[in-house]
Amino acid sequence: MTKTAAIIGGGVIGGGWAARFLLMGWNVRVFDPDPEAERKIGEVLANARRSLPGLSDVSMPEEGALSFHDDLADTVQGAIWVQESVPERLELKQKVYGALMQAVGEDTIVGSSTSGFKPSELQEGLTRPGQVLVTHPFNPVYLLPVVEVVPTAANSAEIRSRASEILTEIGMKPVEIKKEIDAHVADRLLEAVWREALWLVSDGIATTEEIDDIMRFGFGLRWAQMGLFETYRVAGGEAGMKHFMAQFGPCLKWPWTKLMDVPEFTDELVDLIAGQSDAQSGHMTIRELERARDDNLVAMMRGLKARDWGAGALLNEQDKRLGQPEVDIAGPITTLATAIPVDWLDYNGHMTESRYLDAFARSTDRFMEIIGCDADYIATGGSYFTAETHIRHIDEAHLGQRIRVETQCLLGKGKKMHLFHSMYEGERLLATGEHILLHVSLETRRPSPPAEKIELRLVEIAEAHAKQPQPEGVGRAIKVS
Amino acid sequence: MTKTAAIIGGGVIGGGWAARFLLMGWNVRVFDPDPEAERKIGEVLANARRSLPGLSDVSMPEEGALSFHDDLADTVQGAIWVQESVPERLELKQKVYGALMQAVGEDTIVGSSTSGFKPSELQEGLTRPGQVLVTHPFNPVYLLPVVEVVPTAANSAEIRSRASEILTEIGMKPVEIKKEIDAHVADRLLEAVWREALWLVSDGIATTEEIDDIMRFGFGLRWAQMGLFETYRVAGGEAGMKHFMAQFGPCLKWPWTKLMDVPEFTDELVDLIAGQSDAQSGHMTIRELERARDDNLVAMMRGLKARDWGAGALLNEQDKRLGQPEVDIAGPITTLATAIPVDWLDYNGHMTESRYLDAFARSTDRFMEIIGCDADYIATGGSYFTAETHIRHIDEAHLGQRIRVETQCLLGKGKKMHLFHSMYEGERLLATGEHILLHVSLETRRPSPPAEKIELRLVEIAEAHAKQPQPEGVGRAIKVS
Repeated sequence: MTKTAAIIGGGVIGGGWAARFLLMGWNVRVFDPDPEAERKIGEVLANARRSLPGLSDVSMPEEGALSFHDDLADTVQGAIWVQESVPERLELKQKVYGALMQAVGEDTIVGSSTSGFKPSELQEGLTRPGQVLVTHPFNPVYLLPVVEVVPTAANSAEIRSRASEILTEIGMKPVEIKKEIDAHVADRLLEAVWREALWLVSDGIATTEEIDDIMRFGFGLRWAQMGLFETYRVAGGEAGMKHFMAQFGPCLKWPWTKLMDVPEFTDELVDLIAGQSDAQSGHMTIRELERARDDNLVAMMRGLKARDWGAGALLNEQDKRLGQPEVDIAGPITTLATAIPVDWLDYNGHMTESRYLDAFARSTDRFMEIIGCDADYIATGGSYFTAETHIRHIDEAHLGQRIRVETQCLLGKGKKMHLFHSMYEGERLLATGEHILLHVSLETRRPSPPAEKIELRLVEIAEAHAKQPQPEGVGRAIKVS
Repeated sequence: MTKTAAIIGGGVIGGGWAARFLLMGWNVRVFDPDPEAERKIGEVLANARRSLPGLSDVSMPEEGALSFHDDLADTVQGAIWVQESVPERLELKQKVYGALMQAVGEDTIVGSSTSGFKPSELQEGLTRPGQVLVTHPFNPVYLLPVVEVVPTAANSAEIRSRASEILTEIGMKPVEIKKEIDAHVADRLLEAVWREALWLVSDGIATTEEIDDIMRFGFGLRWAQMGLFETYRVAGGEAGMKHFMAQFGPCLKWPWTKLMDVPEFTDELVDLIAGQSDAQSGHMTIRELERARDDNLVAMMRGLKARDWGAGALLNEQDKRLGQPEVDIAGPITTLATAIPVDWLDYNGHMTESRYLDAFARSTDRFMEIIGCDADYIATGGSYFTAETHIRHIDEAHLGQRIRVETQCLLGKGKKMHLFHSMYEGERLLATGEHILLHVSLETRRPSPPAEKIELRLVEIAEAHAKQPQPEGVGRAIKVS
């Protein structure tokens, strides 16, 4: 059954939550008195639609239904999750929570996107404070997975674990903070950097662009995949973390920072920073910057996905949760269903030729899995290697389009496997891939017979598929007229 | 002529510099009294060899020669760059600089890897202070491009610009700091985060792993590609940076940080952090972590390279600087020469099948460029699309191996182009790719004749190549016996 989330307060953060829930197949009901809310959420959703599905290598659920409501109580009807992202004013938030308590069911979880307030401040005076906790996300919410989950003693273990389960289900990475503090964890780190950076600009040590360059050509790349402590553990080398701390610990007492004080927040400082930022990024509109950011994030996260590391490992877990289409061997088998991500495009703006083979190779992997040649079997020393490939490009495909591959097994006998993949977008045939594979011993790297149970299953599928018409173009050579 | 760099002080940083210079084709002469220096630099070099060449999509220079020397004056013979990375003790560094002044030529640039000292402290009392400046890199030096260049008034504009040129030449991103301060720029930001993180662990708010997760599933991914200010510019939306500052500026006065004080650096704090770090990362050795980090960095940087953004745009510039092999149309043309990067491997540990087509597609792009179908021409609305591809896999290829593709043009006539690519590692044939391409109008997306000058050049090459023997396997269909 389709689940329902209610979004209280649109804007960039609320819109990001709405987009993530929708694209993960939830129905989303929005309450926001801003007359521009529908337009604003639509813009966030457009960004999300062009980037989020590309993080998945399997078929994502059908998008849920989005609706807008004028009444808070109406908005939360049927919602098992309510996400509050109203402006950061405590009295406003407390008013919203008071009203929510009258309307939500007793099992509903109410998460707050607040970056500044403690959950105890939000729970104060509520009839059922145990339903409310902080779930603080990061922009863009539809791509960045981390959520700081901050509970209090009022939240039961059951509520906390259900909150984490739901966040995990929509592809996020909940990190539960042990004790509530102002601004949780991330914003304390961000604030420390922000203040130091303001000093550096204010004192004319470096410009905003130079500071950004020092981050994105340097330690930002380290933190994106290992964070702070693991990076330093590696830097410490074989001597270990204790050695690293002994070596660098004393630096803490050095006069390395101006953070003992807060820079004066003058108009001059604001103008200086805004002016430098214009010089640095003013050649791109915010919309262009947003899309560049999203494309960069998708490209880096897909890079980490192939390494099965960090944010990429999380994406692989999400793919596993989403699962594969059901297998029916009576006809061609759907071996791939995915959306075209940004890193599959070329300079002509369409899917680049090698990604057709990438898609077909994934289909082959899936077919191998179906006949029992999975990771466990491969670990025993056998696998299939491709010997020959023939691809015909029939039509173009573009960013975000949902494609699927249907696979017909033309031969499965002894060491040999002959597959014919057809790639479609809807009913439109995009390409075909014909492949000869050989079973090999991973020790000798030479052809060898597969395990019996694999050959049996392969023959079973090949015989079922032999009853299908032969696909057009099989065994054709490249011809030039 | 091969250039020479001298590395004073090995270790992780000195070794990283040595590896980068060597792999960029420089000869490297090392001075380090540590009897383990040769082994340690060898280990860094092994890591660099398996990761750095994969960042390039063109052929890198032949590796330079590495030598070790017992005498400082001997070490710097012929060096146009000397990089000092001795331990962070000012009196030791000043002693080294005193000795260097006796030995280096007057045109040699002497860079210091110091993260703590100001260049004026290093220049103090030297006969030629203008040759010495800070060039502070980041670990791993062979992958992370940023270098903080910190000069003083003693350094001429000529020295400063030559320093930047040389650093750029070896693939780095020099950022010149406007005024010297303790710890330059990056380490002030790092120190601010480190101290805040220590407080969070010490107070039991979050563990080292949770803090790392909050970074690598969250803002680390933002900073890796946009840095701090550009990220906030986007967050501020259309209202601009000034609006963002107005909204968030006052938070600076909130009680959001404990940084007004320095945490007590007790044994208990060290044990707490070291213990949490063991729990987090102790299942991997430092060597495994180093390689995971390098593979992650290569994958993310290659992701950004395809987006032509940040650290990836820098790699594209470096490729352009390295240039393409010379074109001789009398025989098959070398259209690709590169090393196999980590993101080209599959779970079988060898180059994955779609990357063969990726390599062939790059060869096709290069061939198109050679006949004049380059970015400028494509911008006028014409390009070639691949219609058909036939790949034969003949032998395997592995991480870091240098491959090249030789391309024979079998037909070039009207809208049609028929190419035959052969991929080699040394003399070993790895695969062949046969491709039919059609010239298309990018407006109608239908076949159309190419510009006359392109067809003329194509015909010229096709006629020259017609004198070559037909490659084995041309026009062969997929056959199953």
